[in-house]
Amino acid sequence: METQIYDDERIDDLQCKGYRIIQKPNGFCFGIDAVLLSDFVNVKPGCNVLDLCTGSGVIPILLAGKDKGEHITGLELQKEYADMASRSVELNGLSDTIDIICGDVKLGKEFFAPNSYRVVTVNPPYMTDNHGIKNLYEPKTIARHEVALCLEDVIALADYVLPVGGDFFMIHKPFRLAEIFDVMKKHHIEPKRMRLIHPYVDKEPTMVMVHGTKGGKSRITIEPPLIVYKDKNVYTDEIHEIYENCNVD
Amino acid sequence: METQIYDDERIDDLQCKGYRIIQKPNGFCFGIDAVLLSDFVNVKPGCNVLDLCTGSGVIPILLAGKDKGEHITGLELQKEYADMASRSVELNGLSDTIDIICGDVKLGKEFFAPNSYRVVTVNPPYMTDNHGIKNLYEPKTIARHEVALCLEDVIALADYVLPVGGDFFMIHKPFRLAEIFDVMKKHHIEPKRMRLIHPYVDKEPTMVMVHGTKGGKSRITIEPPLIVYKDKNVYTDEIHEIYENCNVD
Repeated sequence: METQIYDDERIDDLQCKGYRIIQKPNGFCFGIDAVLLSDFVNVKPGCNVLDLCTGSGVIPILLAGKDKGEHITGLELQKEYADMASRSVELNGLSDTIDIICGDVKLGKEFFAPNSYRVVTVNPPYMTDNHGIKNLYEPKTIARHEVALCLEDVIALADYVLPVGGDFFMIHKPFRLAEIFDVMKKHHIEPKRMRLIHPYVDKEPTMVMVHGTKGGKSRITIEPPLIVYKDKNVYTDEIHEIYENCNVD
Repeated sequence: METQIYDDERIDDLQCKGYRIIQKPNGFCFGIDAVLLSDFVNVKPGCNVLDLCTGSGVIPILLAGKDKGEHITGLELQKEYADMASRSVELNGLSDTIDIICGDVKLGKEFFAPNSYRVVTVNPPYMTDNHGIKNLYEPKTIARHEVALCLEDVIALADYVLPVGGDFFMIHKPFRLAEIFDVMKKHHIEPKRMRLIHPYVDKEPTMVMVHGTKGGKSRITIEPPLIVYKDKNVYTDEIHEIYENCNVD
């Protein structure tokens, strides 16, 4: 059975075990953040994973490519993205490993059981400032801005589905770090590890990855800075390694 | 009048406007953290500063050397350190700019008025783990470990003496970052700016500097990493600049 691809879509190579992904060139496409988060995530053998705000399903597919997660569920609010993610899963023959659910994070308690996932991952909408946005419910806006959910909705659902000791991994914007820690602690997820991503070594970070553990003791490891470029358009060795790790079979 | 120096003390050059400091070679001596914090601190013209856990008074003297603070008060619990700090102030002819108070942070409300300082600085004891320490009340232990006060005592006093809009600057250990943010927020001091200090670019940070504003909005700027060494025993250019800035008259 051939996977359906629509006219406004294209198939991109994920550079990971030959896996491919269906994206809309005019819609929200995955970026380096998905690649870095899937590298940052640790999943113990036999554990299942829930990826919130999964979009095109890029994180579940990358995690499957890295053998992280016995089974991975992707939750996506927007029907057209959830449908596209399901077709990418099928395209890669990953239907036994990944399932995509179309649903609202805010209503997650209706379709997930408590303590049902050992790991939660999320690359959520980053921006709170919706000022000046003409169409708040345009799909790209929903992916980037907190119009359909807020940070606390995401973390509250993680708290609900994770058992004590379960792990939460998120990539977000550094300017929200204090708020992120605050909301995590409020929902019993203790920040245990973080890494800042800087475009250059002498620049402010543009992203932060946080790993929390439900019910964990307060003590965080801050990892060395992850520097993306060593020169204009030249990736650092570490970024090359992260991309290459994905290609090892 | 000559400043009294005791047999177990020595006078060190602060490399800052010719200022000197009395220290006990066998006691707790200031390190690079005091130099980096005094560089990180911003003080608007005409503002007064309260330095908690001032020890030998190194931060008040460095701030005076950098013209940061109209008047600076140092608070120190341990009498022998407070006395040494007062003599260093006198030795540098800074008695009009700096005063040293011997007193307990936990009792600070008894001798400070609310809203009485525009800026609070602190290089507090870093360690919570007092396991295996034989003499909990040895002066070096009090300087390094939370035996005489805890993080919350420091931040609660900062909250009390600062007006809304007042600034708080602290250097601490990164493993306590989530707790630091939590306690700051609990005491109305919003983390607004931070910088991690890494010994080398590919190593975990060993210190973090945090700048909070009382009553501030939740949005933090994370600065580029501050890297101490570019090679074994070779400071980076930025560390050289920080030390040299102090020498400009």
